[in-house]
Amino acid sequence: MASAVKGVESPNVQSSVVEVIDTLKQRFGDRCATSLALREQHGHTTTWLANQPPDAVVFAEKTEEVAEVVRLCAQHKVPIIPFGRGSSLEGHVNAPLGGISVDLSRMDKILEVNSEDLDCRVEAGVTRKHLNSYLRDTGLFFPIDPGADASIGGMAATRASGTNAVRYGTMKDAVLGLTIVTADGRIIKTGGRARKSSAGYDLTRLFVGSEGTLGVITELTLRLHGQPEAISGGVCPFPDVHSACNAVISTIQMGIPVARIELLDSLQVKACNAYSKLDLAETPTLFLEFHGSDAGVREQSELFSAIAEEYGGGPFDWATAAEERSKLWTARHDAYWSGKSLKPDSQVMVTDVCVPISRLAECVSETAEDISARGLLAPIVGHVGDGNFHVQILVDLDNKEEMRVTEDFVEQLSLRAIGMGGTCTGEHGVGQGKQKYLRSEHGDALEVMRTIKQALDPDNVMNPGKILPQS
Amino acid sequence: MASAVKGVESPNVQSSVVEVIDTLKQRFGDRCATSLALREQHGHTTTWLANQPPDAVVFAEKTEEVAEVVRLCAQHKVPIIPFGRGSSLEGHVNAPLGGISVDLSRMDKILEVNSEDLDCRVEAGVTRKHLNSYLRDTGLFFPIDPGADASIGGMAATRASGTNAVRYGTMKDAVLGLTIVTADGRIIKTGGRARKSSAGYDLTRLFVGSEGTLGVITELTLRLHGQPEAISGGVCPFPDVHSACNAVISTIQMGIPVARIELLDSLQVKACNAYSKLDLAETPTLFLEFHGSDAGVREQSELFSAIAEEYGGGPFDWATAAEERSKLWTARHDAYWSGKSLKPDSQVMVTDVCVPISRLAECVSETAEDISARGLLAPIVGHVGDGNFHVQILVDLDNKEEMRVTEDFVEQLSLRAIGMGGTCTGEHGVGQGKQKYLRSEHGDALEVMRTIKQALDPDNVMNPGKILPQS
Repeated sequence: MASAVKGVESPNVQSSVVEVIDTLKQRFGDRCATSLALREQHGHTTTWLANQPPDAVVFAEKTEEVAEVVRLCAQHKVPIIPFGRGSSLEGHVNAPLGGISVDLSRMDKILEVNSEDLDCRVEAGVTRKHLNSYLRDTGLFFPIDPGADASIGGMAATRASGTNAVRYGTMKDAVLGLTIVTADGRIIKTGGRARKSSAGYDLTRLFVGSEGTLGVITELTLRLHGQPEAISGGVCPFPDVHSACNAVISTIQMGIPVARIELLDSLQVKACNAYSKLDLAETPTLFLEFHGSDAGVREQSELFSAIAEEYGGGPFDWATAAEERSKLWTARHDAYWSGKSLKPDSQVMVTDVCVPISRLAECVSETAEDISARGLLAPIVGHVGDGNFHVQILVDLDNKEEMRVTEDFVEQLSLRAIGMGGTCTGEHGVGQGKQKYLRSEHGDALEVMRTIKQALDPDNVMNPGKILPQS
Repeated sequence: MASAVKGVESPNVQSSVVEVIDTLKQRFGDRCATSLALREQHGHTTTWLANQPPDAVVFAEKTEEVAEVVRLCAQHKVPIIPFGRGSSLEGHVNAPLGGISVDLSRMDKILEVNSEDLDCRVEAGVTRKHLNSYLRDTGLFFPIDPGADASIGGMAATRASGTNAVRYGTMKDAVLGLTIVTADGRIIKTGGRARKSSAGYDLTRLFVGSEGTLGVITELTLRLHGQPEAISGGVCPFPDVHSACNAVISTIQMGIPVARIELLDSLQVKACNAYSKLDLAETPTLFLEFHGSDAGVREQSELFSAIAEEYGGGPFDWATAAEERSKLWTARHDAYWSGKSLKPDSQVMVTDVCVPISRLAECVSETAEDISARGLLAPIVGHVGDGNFHVQILVDLDNKEEMRVTEDFVEQLSLRAIGMGGTCTGEHGVGQGKQKYLRSEHGDALEVMRTIKQALDPDNVMNPGKILPQS
């Protein structure tokens, strides 16, 4: 993919970028890097999209430094691409127009934890695992858990969620406030520490999910939760995807406050057995977890057992020991890697959609048929309590015909979800990969998004080429 | 207040307004009204602010009609003031620059209820009580319950909440999608029916809480909840406000999923006893409600009892019959009226703030001292599980000295809350009454709000003079 690389050595780099990089090198020394390997690594993510490296990478260590970089870039109309851990899936950190990748991974300080208020303030580069390790002894935890050990800033930027979202919500619910560097290099604070406010426009939720196209998130105030007194959970096999989905729908409709309810199709179960050394029946399976008091989790587990049985599923072995549970959820979080191991020489194209839960069984079943009809190898796994599921297509990215079939499949899946009143992405974000579906999903509301982008970033320097399709 | 009235008969009305009203009368006939009484009623709300009636009122019956009115007004740069039920508290429906009040109360159709997905779609003029009556037999309910029987559209516009917010969230959480008429008269749809999405900017949450300043909300897709299997609840007296607040803090920190936890100070309890024929000890009191299974609500109630006892409160009589509970919560919702009845010839100035819960006891106590020091008569009541509380000051709006003291009090309260990391309004909104505190609360983020307003409503026709203070 070297052809896509823009280098400082390359003659087509605009003189303004060269000037910006010169200034950054003087200001940041070694913390401004231009080696090809590093630049490629900063364009490359766990994505199927071609690598488009930035012209340079700056490792920022505080908000004021980010603001400095942004001001300099803005002055020269050079793109700024915020970078957390590079674990996004839709080309969010690619630099299609070149520019400066602002790497926030060194901004990894947990600034305060307010146990009494169940909140904390962190720098954007803190990862979710780091935060939870830090919180372990406080009795609190941060529930949002995308597959990767993503940075909290990146998770906010893509409106990430994960396995706990059905109970604890997504990043839109987890973020109370933000510190943001705007496109003109000002530092603003949105939101606050109050649990609710009616004091003006909800800038926090405008920036959550804006993928760096409106500003750079540098600090976050997060809502935390008490570690549950008791946890129960386990796996429940079903004869087919349809009955598993129907059990999920009943569970949600009955108001059982399930903490996690995840579907793995039989191919994904097979992958987990092999990769994570499990011993599950290779049939569509739900992974579940219940949080509450001892009595509460017992009650929830029993209620779910009855539902599973009604749909021909089970047995639901929920009295799993903590160790066994941890093994299950590690396997679930490693689904990307276990899926990939089904065909070790392949690459993975991961996509996700989300539909109203009443359409889930239909959407998953049609998708499974489509995978089969197209001859693809693609496990399905998902946060089905939200109506959200992922498909991991194992492909050879260099095989044009395979990629054509794969891209057609993703298009059909996205349009199917939108047609059912759902969305072309439940939690991965738009990046470059899903831009072409936004018109179908949002209609004229897309123009309102464009107006906001134009107003807040008139020179289009903030992560250009993402979210909004070219008009 | 006749001096503030702008009338079509008045010589100072701009010719453009006259032209717009002529056209509206031709188009809408009797549904475009200009009588002084009706105009005053549409400027007047349950607010302490002076009445500023619009020049005319149009009763819209569908989204396309709202769009027609907006397009006509936009063409002539005449203000548009959306009107639901007029129950807002901070002058939201006043017309300081004149213009057309668009009354949405006839848009009161419940368009669909999707029981399987726990959602529904309603027109903006549906009220919360109407919706819940309609839902009664479906096993579902809509939890957001401000004191008044407000319209759902108005509740979204002010980001309202109420007694259930501690468990079920606010309008920001309850709204899945919106139909909006933008400032140029286009009709857009935001959000959708999926439980989560990462597909672009969160326009839904930008419009929720924007108080009609960015567009008119005409339809809403709402998240519903299953009616709880069991409910328990009751009242718990405390020796003082401080111990009551500390019991609330412990309850939240322990993760007890309380559905409602409301503080009434002793003056408010006295008012409820008199107005709502209760027989409570006149001491600071918590009203509580727990939702869940039979075993769950019993467990929650017992846990709370123990907490109350620890802080010197109780006894907590939670085995209250449904009838008795209903009487309590009616009294709670009638707090505005019972408060007012403490001094029947007075008017009421209601204000609200919200702070991090660790600061709640301190904030309420300092506020009570301040009320006493200023010689005000002002019951305190609040959704303390969120850190949110209200003060109802009983005043004579025509007494300048009393109003000066009252406005000073509100200023000190707002700045106290902001200083504690909270907000100058938890759920009432900014309107005209809280504009002056937004700079203290948001700093430079206010300029970002201003940029968005300017971009989406360049001619400032959408509810001008609200939220954003003059720069």
